[in-house]
Amino acid sequence: MPVVTIAQSPGRSLEQKRELVKKITDAFVTSYGVKPESVTIFLQDYDDSNWGKAGLLHVDAQAGKDG
Amino acid sequence: MPVVTIAQSPGRSLEQKRELVKKITDAFVTSYGVKPESVTIFLQDYDDSNWGKAGLLHVDAQAGKDG
Amino acid sequence: MPVVTIAQSPGRSLEQKRELVKKITDAFVTSYGVKPESVTIFLQDYDDSNWGKAGLLHVDAQAGKDG
Amino acid sequence: MPVVTIAQSPGRSLEQKRELVKKITDAFVTSYGVKPESVTIFLQDYDDSNWGKAGLLHVDAQAGKDG
Amino acid sequence: MPVVTIAQSPGRSLEQKRELVKKITDAFVTSYGVKPESVTIFLQDYDDSNWGKAGLLHVDAQAGKDG
Amino acid sequence: MPVVTIAQSPGRSLEQKRELVKKITDAFVTSYGVKPESVTIFLQDYDDSNWGKAGLLHVDAQAGKDG
Repeated sequence: MPVVTIAQSPGRSLEQKRELVKKITDAFVTSYGVKPESVTIFLQDYDDSNWGKAGLLHVDAQAGKDG
Repeated sequence: MPVVTIAQSPGRSLEQKRELVKKITDAFVTSYGVKPESVTIFLQDYDDSNWGKAGLLHVDAQAGKDG
Repeated sequence: MPVVTIAQSPGRSLEQKRELVKKITDAFVTSYGVKPESVTIFLQDYDDSNWGKAGLLHVDAQAGKDG
Repeated sequence: MPVVTIAQSPGRSLEQKRELVKKITDAFVTSYGVKPESVTIFLQDYDDSNWGKAGLLHVDAQAGKDG
Repeated sequence: MPVVTIAQSPGRSLEQKRELVKKITDAFVTSYGVKPESVTIFLQDYDDSNWGKAGLLHVDAQAGKDG
Repeated sequence: MPVVTIAQSPGRSLEQKRELVKKITDAFVTSYGVKPESVTIFLQDYDDSNWGKAGLLHVDAQAGKDG
C-alpha cells in the first residue's frame, strides 16, 4: 500500500511514464510519509475505441472535432 | 463522475461499443440527472485465456462445450 | 461477463440505483446481445473528501463554489 | 482522462489528501502536458481487516509485530 | 505484484477473510512461483443495494426470492 | 459475486493461469462456502513499462539490477 491504478490514453513515451511514476511516488512520500518502496503504480492504456465521454467513443469525438 | 469501467470479452464491433456507450450515458442522465459530459466509460477487453469462471479459464470452458 | 464497476457520489436513492442498474443491463442486452443474467454491476460511493478533480478534493471545490 | 484510483489505508487527514491530490495532478500536468481539469482521482480506504500481504490480513500482521 | 482486488458481499468473518487471504497467497506461490511477500490482496464489500445482477439490485432480488 | 481482478506480469503460461484460477476458486468455495459458479476471475497483464514500484518503472528497475 498504497496501490495506484491509472487509466490513460496510449502513446505516452517511456520518458513521460518514468517521470510520472517518480513524481507520483514522491507525492506519497511527501504527503503521507510512506516509504517509496511501499508505492506500486499500474498504467492502463485505453485505445480511442475503448473509452468514451459524454456518450461518444473517443474515436468518434475526435472525428467530430476534425471533421 | 460517474466513471464506469467495463470488463468484457474482446471482439465487440465499433458499432456495438458506440451504441453501448451512448445507452449507458443516457442511463445516467435519465436515472441520476447528471450531464452527459460528466460520464466517462472505459472498456477492458479480456482474452479467453485471461478470465475464468467456476474454476475454469474461459478458453477451457469453451473447449469443454465444443468437445 | 460483462462486469461493470461504477464510481459515483454517495446519496443516490434506492430508486435511482434500481433504475440505473436496469437500464445499464438493458443496454448490454440490446447492444451486445448478451443475456441479462450475464451482467453484474457494482456501485462504489466516494465521499466528497475521497475524490478530486483539477487538483482539488471535491469537498474543497464545493466550498469554493459556495463561498 | 486520466483517471487515478488509489487503494490506501484509512485515517489520512483531509490536509494529507488535499496535498496528495494536488501533487498527483501536478505530476500529470508536468509529465503528460494535460490540463488539470482532465485529471480525476479516487481514494479507496481499506480497513486493516480488508487487505493483506504475504498471506496475512494486515490486522494480524500488526498484531504479530506488536505481540 | 501480483495485486488482487476482490469484490464481495459484506459480512464475512475475520476468520473467513484470514483463511481466504492465506489460500489465495498460497495459490500464487504454488502456481506462479512468486514469494508470499509479493502478493497484496484487497477486499471490497458491496452492500445489497450497491450491486446487482440480471438488471436487479441484489436487495430486490433477495426480496423477490423471499416474497 | 465474488469477482476477482488480478494485476500481474505478462508471460504466465496457460498452464500456470489454469492452475491459479482453479486454486483461487477453490479458496472461495472452502473459505466462504460459495458455489464455484459464482466466482469470476480477471487477469490483467502489465508490461514492464506499464508498472512501477519505489518510484521506478519495472523496466528501469530490471535494468538497474542487471547493469
